[in-house]
Amino acid sequence: MSNIEKSYIDSLLELLDERKYTAFMHEIDEINPIDAAEFFEFLPKERIPIVFRLLKKDTASEIFAELDSDLQEQIIKAMSDREVSSMLEELYTDDVIDMLEEMPAGVVKRIMKAATPEIREEINRFLAYPEKSAGSVMTSEFIDLHKNMTCDEAVKRIRKIGLDKETVYVAYVTDQARVLEGVVQLKQLLFAEPEYIIGDIMETNLPFAYTHDDRESVANMISHYDIIALPIVDKEKRLVGIVTVDDALDVLETEATEDIEKMAAILPTDKPYLKTGIFETWKKRIPWLLLLMISATFTSAIIQGYEAAIGTYAILTAFFPMLMDTGGNAGGQTSVTIIRGLSLGEIEPRDVLRVLGKEICVGAFCGITLAAATFLKVMALDFRFQQYTIQDNGLVQDNLLIAAIISITVFFAIMIAKTVGTLLPLGAKKIGLDPAVMASPFITTIVDTITLMIYFTIASSFLPF
Amino acid sequence: MSNIEKSYIDSLLELLDERKYTAFMHEIDEINPIDAAEFFEFLPKERIPIVFRLLKKDTASEIFAELDSDLQEQIIKAMSDREVSSMLEELYTDDVIDMLEEMPAGVVKRIMKAATPEIREEINRFLAYPEKSAGSVMTSEFIDLHKNMTCDEAVKRIRKIGLDKETVYVAYVTDQARVLEGVVQLKQLLFAEPEYIIGDIMETNLPFAYTHDDRESVANMISHYDIIALPIVDKEKRLVGIVTVDDALDVLETEATEDIEKMAAILPTDKPYLKTGIFETWKKRIPWLLLLMISATFTSAIIQGYEAAIGTYAILTAFFPMLMDTGGNAGGQTSVTIIRGLSLGEIEPRDVLRVLGKEICVGAFCGITLAAATFLKVMALDFRFQQYTIQDNGLVQDNLLIAAIISITVFFAIMIAKTVGTLLPLGAKKIGLDPAVMASPFITTIVDTITLMIYFTIASSFLPF
Repeated sequence: MSNIEKSYIDSLLELLDERKYTAFMHEIDEINPIDAAEFFEFLPKERIPIVFRLLKKDTASEIFAELDSDLQEQIIKAMSDREVSSMLEELYTDDVIDMLEEMPAGVVKRIMKAATPEIREEINRFLAYPEKSAGSVMTSEFIDLHKNMTCDEAVKRIRKIGLDKETVYVAYVTDQARVLEGVVQLKQLLFAEPEYIIGDIMETNLPFAYTHDDRESVANMISHYDIIALPIVDKEKRLVGIVTVDDALDVLETEATEDIEKMAAILPTDKPYLKTGIFETWKKRIPWLLLLMISATFTSAIIQGYEAAIGTYAILTAFFPMLMDTGGNAGGQTSVTIIRGLSLGEIEPRDVLRVLGKEICVGAFCGITLAAATFLKVMALDFRFQQYTIQDNGLVQDNLLIAAIISITVFFAIMIAKTVGTLLPLGAKKIGLDPAVMASPFITTIVDTITLMIYFTIASSFLPF
Repeated sequence: MSNIEKSYIDSLLELLDERKYTAFMHEIDEINPIDAAEFFEFLPKERIPIVFRLLKKDTASEIFAELDSDLQEQIIKAMSDREVSSMLEELYTDDVIDMLEEMPAGVVKRIMKAATPEIREEINRFLAYPEKSAGSVMTSEFIDLHKNMTCDEAVKRIRKIGLDKETVYVAYVTDQARVLEGVVQLKQLLFAEPEYIIGDIMETNLPFAYTHDDRESVANMISHYDIIALPIVDKEKRLVGIVTVDDALDVLETEATEDIEKMAAILPTDKPYLKTGIFETWKKRIPWLLLLMISATFTSAIIQGYEAAIGTYAILTAFFPMLMDTGGNAGGQTSVTIIRGLSLGEIEPRDVLRVLGKEICVGAFCGITLAAATFLKVMALDFRFQQYTIQDNGLVQDNLLIAAIISITVFFAIMIAKTVGTLLPLGAKKIGLDPAVMASPFITTIVDTITLMIYFTIASSFLPF
């Protein structure tokens, strides 16, 4: 998403070419740091560190936090240790952690060496939180108050320490041991009398999460409670950080993208599509394609087992694709619905019986509808110009019989697809695996195999195999 | 996601049963309105309006906005016109609009009748915005300032009018004609000297959107710029509303869920899974299942056309499921990646050539890898105990020949799947259709058909059909 005009980028480039550096700095200061970061992507790589050095210290760090990691790496490499150290002072912890996670080991080493001991300690603490935990996305730059302060004192404290904080709109009340006691909104302070006591106006019944909680559930809580930030505490309920709503937005977008990719049998990427190389894209897609191809050995084996019968009743194979796709689609509908419900926290593994009951009912209705429709379609379309006479006893009109075999198989294919589509994602979640992997491609393979077995079993009991 | 404890709910119910209404009201006032709304779902339906009437006016409206639409309907029905009118005064416009969109026509009529003329006019204006537009999700409760105010005056104005506003943390500067001129953060006012002039500290280079813009692109902008609210203007650039970050979160979650549902061949629902009835779920799932089943007429027709050949070479049909699934999976990977990229604004329809070029390259690599793997797998696994002798000229070892036919088909299936998977969603977006519909199930049907045609064409040129 590019929100700055091409002509504006050109005018900035022109200022640089004409060495009008003061005018350039003035322009960059005026625009949003996110737009400024986008501008840097239009610069030739070798000019980036030089132009970056022109910027004011705080503008520079704001823009730096928004740059792509390859540009960040380039700038860091061109910086002196002292410059790196002062940049680290300016950045929010969560941005530093984001950056370090993308850098090659050598660059990380240099950054850690350049950091002050306090910052180094903080970085190490944050890096120790598990991947995708609340701790890994929180920031330690929050405002803390004490409950015996007056509102006036609180506002003064916010004015004093607020400039470097990720948000000034919520402040957290902690006791001597840094244990979280309550929350105060800047809005409350704005409307309260100056002499009111924080302890009297703070909310004590506030949502919070632990550092080891999953980042997705933290983001869901922020969304559920419509709050600007969620406090994150350690095991002793000491306040160690906050996750802000803009981070929650990023987490939810990333998690949704990852789920969608996994459901489509792709290994998740964290880069935008157009920035991912061909080889990298191949690497993310080929494993599942290979695995699913090899797992089709089951379906091949079943069909091979009935090779002789197929020689006689070749018409049966004309419905392989329809049966496979219908089972896959029906199973995909169920599994994808459940995977999304699990992500949004609308469904829990303990709902398994309720969900299964519902899916079996829905499956039965879908199965009956589709079996009836299939019967009519096969008779009216597929067998319109053909008359199959398989049994010569004159009792059975074979078109009807084959259409019936196909329809009954459709019904069972859907029932199995709905059951497998329910149990696999819920089971995965239950044993701590990622349910998103249990989406249509995986389920298709299983449902295909069972459907073929049913198809041949029914066919062989009605036709003289 | 239930965040309040069962025991707490029980204690609230007990207070009601013992008619301790003052204690109950005190408790409800203490907890988050979102949790309070959840509590109401545990009440027997007939008690809800009575209990609701106990609440203080502002608590009542805060909780009302968070209730499910069926509970809202029940409460409205039990209210007098005067009560409805006073509730409407308290609610934010976007919550009123959300509510009206879910109510049956009769209830909407009553609400509109009870509303004051000003509110009725505002509701009508908001209802006129197209579905899923910025106008349909914005709220008109924002703070406006003038540029010749001092910071002190601005803070006083925010204190005066801010209590009813959706956010007090951003204020918008407009001229006499209500045209948007700039934005001021409360954070800026907090750190500025009282006598500073708003016109000097406001940011004029601010992101905004038009009422008719798509709500998803508005939410993407809020996420991109990490802002608390985005101003929404009409064609004359007059400020008419704002969309806040919590609304953006809801929009992005809803849009992601809708996309996921459409990709899985489900008509989108707006209710959580466990609250959707069986018949309703059936109605959302059966149309695509039917359509895709009927569209399989193409694959049946192709196979029927080669029925005689299949009688002789039944082994060919053993690879139908593998070929169908591989094509479907490969096409799904591409289409789903592109659909998500379009949603996030990372890909535009004008990128079609870049995307197609990349997909063809990735497809070629995937195709070669998979064709080679298929050849090895067919020889090593599927044909392990079987020797097929189709041509009796002694020149061709037929196992090798059939394995080669299958592998070449796999290669083409992937190339076609990647091409169709690229062109369909981008084409849909280009002509204003929803790209999410062009996901795996739809693409599978097309790719199945083409793959079968290729399979039989290759087979018939190498085997004596």
